[in-house]
Amino acid sequence: MANLNGSASDLRATFLDVYSKLKSELLTDPAFEWTDGSRQWVDRMLDYNVPGGKLNRGLSVIDSYKLLKEGKDLTDDEVFLASALGWCIEWLQAYFLVLDDIMDNSHTRRGQPCWFKVPKVGMIAINDGIILRNHIPRILKKHFRTKPYYVDLLDLFNEVEFQTASGQMIDLITTIEGEKDLSKYSLPLHRRIVQYKTAYYSFYLPVACALLMAGEDLEKHPTVKDVLIDMGIYFQVQDDYLDCYGEPEKIGKIGTDIEDFKCSWLVVKALELCNEEQKKILLEHYGKENPADVAKIKALYNELNLQGAFAEFENKSYVKLNGSIEAHPSKSVQAVLKSFLGKIYKRQK
Amino acid sequence: MANLNGSASDLRATFLDVYSKLKSELLTDPAFEWTDGSRQWVDRMLDYNVPGGKLNRGLSVIDSYKLLKEGKDLTDDEVFLASALGWCIEWLQAYFLVLDDIMDNSHTRRGQPCWFKVPKVGMIAINDGIILRNHIPRILKKHFRTKPYYVDLLDLFNEVEFQTASGQMIDLITTIEGEKDLSKYSLPLHRRIVQYKTAYYSFYLPVACALLMAGEDLEKHPTVKDVLIDMGIYFQVQDDYLDCYGEPEKIGKIGTDIEDFKCSWLVVKALELCNEEQKKILLEHYGKENPADVAKIKALYNELNLQGAFAEFENKSYVKLNGSIEAHPSKSVQAVLKSFLGKIYKRQK
Repeated sequence: MANLNGSASDLRATFLDVYSKLKSELLTDPAFEWTDGSRQWVDRMLDYNVPGGKLNRGLSVIDSYKLLKEGKDLTDDEVFLASALGWCIEWLQAYFLVLDDIMDNSHTRRGQPCWFKVPKVGMIAINDGIILRNHIPRILKKHFRTKPYYVDLLDLFNEVEFQTASGQMIDLITTIEGEKDLSKYSLPLHRRIVQYKTAYYSFYLPVACALLMAGEDLEKHPTVKDVLIDMGIYFQVQDDYLDCYGEPEKIGKIGTDIEDFKCSWLVVKALELCNEEQKKILLEHYGKENPADVAKIKALYNELNLQGAFAEFENKSYVKLNGSIEAHPSKSVQAVLKSFLGKIYKRQK
Repeated sequence: MANLNGSASDLRATFLDVYSKLKSELLTDPAFEWTDGSRQWVDRMLDYNVPGGKLNRGLSVIDSYKLLKEGKDLTDDEVFLASALGWCIEWLQAYFLVLDDIMDNSHTRRGQPCWFKVPKVGMIAINDGIILRNHIPRILKKHFRTKPYYVDLLDLFNEVEFQTASGQMIDLITTIEGEKDLSKYSLPLHRRIVQYKTAYYSFYLPVACALLMAGEDLEKHPTVKDVLIDMGIYFQVQDDYLDCYGEPEKIGKIGTDIEDFKCSWLVVKALELCNEEQKKILLEHYGKENPADVAKIKALYNELNLQGAFAEFENKSYVKLNGSIEAHPSKSVQAVLKSFLGKIYKRQK
């Protein structure tokens, strides 16, 4: 497994090897008496839902751990453990996506039908989501039970899951079906949804896992958390921006946030900047399928110069994040945070 | 709170006081930035789904802990902690029920519409199920973080949840919509579904919580687990029996297992006892709504003397369970197990 100290594609291949290992352990977990049918079901369900994404969150645990170790070659055991934690985050993501897709009644995910849309799956997907979630403590118990940071890992995953579900809750209850009410949308609400629903598990969790593995006490790293949460918010604002202004060939989809009445940074910024006349346009045309309505919203966004507002937000975020990072006493922690920032700053996709 | 050493209705009232305390702590959990809307939502969701059941599982943690303490009066702190663990089991149950009702497309639960059937809730109920599940580690962390058995509590709840979800999985995949296939049903499959889906969390979990609180090592109590699992299986067989042969006034519902094509103990026993001629009746009439079909199945059950087969199962289970209990070296553990057995032996409801 020394490959992990090699190229990015080697790293990915090694990471996927760990997936196969974890999967085969889970499929023979002695805490359950498997039937052939149930083993085949879980096997297929995992392959369908867990490894098909970009794997950024999972891979970043290994990257971060390496940087914390100041570039020293990792042992095979360290590579395996960092990968296992990375996969726990990918499992967490799969669990959220399987259930989110049911709640949003989505059709496709990662270029294939959503799991609950697959024939004979349907609402069994809810229990599959639960199974995915339950695999995380199974993996942690098998590989980390004797580590001094085991209980901190359990607490960390529990707290981050709670925060993600809470963020999802405010998102869901502000956009209850049939109550399209733009007056609820605001920058503070947007920040709150994004911070809880995305930033904790996508940005803080991978680094927190790496810190625990490196023997650090998370309580002693409040600025690391703050910086990563701010980075997560910045990342989601970029996502909202690219949904409207990104190139579909680069972002891999055609944005529909306007049609879907999403609480996007663009619409909350527009609500902040608009006059009464312009507000009427938002109220009348936001959240409608018709291309003419969408065009009216896009024209208003341009009139309000949201591209300029975004550029300003991006620059301010970068300066602030960089300042916080430079102020951190540890060079290796700085390297971890800079690596994250470097990957997302001015991204086009 | 000394009332808990008093009557059953005092005990229930004290237990409900603890619910209010836990709820108000959860609604001000500092790990999340609450909005008024989200706090109101969770408040209502908890009151609707958590405290409305019989509370047997939760109350039995306190009963068991008292018996382990050999009847000594419990301190207020002990009562609170045992109640908090009892509520964690009730929260776990609420989480399963909210999601099961969606998967089964049920209409009512505990005499009211299922949560997902309540106006404006719908599929948000999936996230509410996740929130319920996430409350358990929040309660445990707040009240047990400094206890020597904290990590064992986390492991216990994680393992039991995994087993429950796995049991639910085999139940779901053996009865996939549109594939009514009686040939899959058998006593070993029935035992497996019942053991994993019900027995672990309903019978083993409450006693395991009490044992941990009393400072016991669960690894040293394998027979306690075995006895409670067997009791849980026996309990579920009774449930299946009462669905057909119980008095609706006593069990509080009209059984529909035959109409619903359930993998009930009665049908698997019938499949075991029937001849070829009788098997044709099962294949033709099981799982149909029409009262004439149901009557044919009930007549066959009588012809096969399933009431006698059940009486035999009940007697054998009782003798076996009693023998295992008497063989246990600790009198206080014996008392806990006998208390459980006494509550369910020959129950009519």
